[in-house]
Amino acid sequence: MSFADKLSLAQTRNSSWLCVGLDPDPSRFPHDLERPDDILVFNRAIIDATQDLVCAYKPNLAFYLAHGTKGLDALSQTINSIPRNLVTVLDGKFGDIESSARGYARFAFDLLAVDAVTLSPFLGSDSLTPFVEYAERGVFILCHTSNPGAQDLQDRSVDSKPMYLQVAELAGNLHGKADVGLVVGATFPEQLKAIRENSPESIFLIPGVGAQGGGLAATARFGKSSGGIGPLINVSRSVLYASSGSDFAQQARSAASKLRDEINALVPRLSSPG
Amino acid sequence: MSFADKLSLAQTRNSSWLCVGLDPDPSRFPHDLERPDDILVFNRAIIDATQDLVCAYKPNLAFYLAHGTKGLDALSQTINSIPRNLVTVLDGKFGDIESSARGYARFAFDLLAVDAVTLSPFLGSDSLTPFVEYAERGVFILCHTSNPGAQDLQDRSVDSKPMYLQVAELAGNLHGKADVGLVVGATFPEQLKAIRENSPESIFLIPGVGAQGGGLAATARFGKSSGGIGPLINVSRSVLYASSGSDFAQQARSAASKLRDEINALVPRLSSPG
Repeated sequence: MSFADKLSLAQTRNSSWLCVGLDPDPSRFPHDLERPDDILVFNRAIIDATQDLVCAYKPNLAFYLAHGTKGLDALSQTINSIPRNLVTVLDGKFGDIESSARGYARFAFDLLAVDAVTLSPFLGSDSLTPFVEYAERGVFILCHTSNPGAQDLQDRSVDSKPMYLQVAELAGNLHGKADVGLVVGATFPEQLKAIRENSPESIFLIPGVGAQGGGLAATARFGKSSGGIGPLINVSRSVLYASSGSDFAQQARSAASKLRDEINALVPRLSSPG
Repeated sequence: MSFADKLSLAQTRNSSWLCVGLDPDPSRFPHDLERPDDILVFNRAIIDATQDLVCAYKPNLAFYLAHGTKGLDALSQTINSIPRNLVTVLDGKFGDIESSARGYARFAFDLLAVDAVTLSPFLGSDSLTPFVEYAERGVFILCHTSNPGAQDLQDRSVDSKPMYLQVAELAGNLHGKADVGLVVGATFPEQLKAIRENSPESIFLIPGVGAQGGGLAATARFGKSSGGIGPLINVSRSVLYASSGSDFAQQARSAASKLRDEINALVPRLSSPG
């Protein structure tokens, strides 16, 4: 099954465009769960509490490497704890020359067996193709990120077009077996609109809702592809740390449920697919 | 001691601007050393054979993550096998939003205790500052990479200036405790010259010599900073795999020695520092 089909099925099954970012920070865990060893315990509680409310989970590699080999073990076990009919995106923002890119692709797709990865376009096409060669996988190219620094380079005019549209074009010209999507931050709604107009068929991964302050309106309006695939709307901190008490998993569920409902209210057809 | 001072001392001690990229590919190891477990054995043999000929080693994270937690263990032990008076650069090309960048910085500078990292500028200043806050460390911002795809975005004109010069400017405006250098590929000598003219004080990390085909002439001519710090001229495959026989370490030494001498012949003053 293609990545797009797997995502579409997961979105329909749970009536959800929500993606929970599994970015564990032990210093924000409840008091009885504050050692790095507890990352897996924490993540599994979050997954158990939210797996009928989301279409995808997105662990960010940084939060695991920060704990060395123990962290990497927790990442692998976390991924194995995610139900197989949901989508898993490894957020590594990989971008390196071809021989190195092959190593990262092997890590993500062969070893961890995730469905999709995030990639940085700065090194150009040949840094992306080793990932795109994988069938039944997805790649999300960073197009316009959610952080304030996105304006430093991504908003600049490149040969009389904003760089983020040049990146969208570069992504559109990739040929391979994987589905190619774009990362577009919710914190820049004008750019989100422009990128959707430029790339009607692209699947969007949209970070920046929640702790980063991005709104849901533009996300719901421009998120869906012309092929009918909804975006992965990612939230991390506002779900993971909805409570710092022993009720963290229940509160995470409440926060995820509320967000899913807010999204579905903005996109009425999502809750009655067909 | 600052990163620049440590590098300068290492360059003087070994009369060398050479950096060996520790990018282990077990499929290219000698026949008696072809399991992933042998990465550490291989790397230690390379380090033992070349440590009086180089100023630095640069392990690329991809080649270790491709072997999961065993690979990450090998990375950590490899770094611990590098003599402390030489420079160690973790080539991770990290580029993520601030909270994630802090995780990568912790991984590289606190856990692995490397002297420097490579960073991708695509997400802008706020993705770089968590690394720059570390004292006695170095960061090398990707400015113009050595791969063919570098032309896809890096050579494009951004607000009437090539993007690589915009990146050099962005790097120059970073303020922190670390020394900020630039990654500039040897395969694009014109760009190397332009970046040196634009950033006279920057320390350069120069990949692309050897297997990637970059020449030494421009590297030697434009590599040195106005402060007198030589570049780290990186070679990986042409040293690591100089022989696929049991004499691989000796042949790696010969290849490294020849390269160091070629560089020093082009930069006569290096061999008699003062």
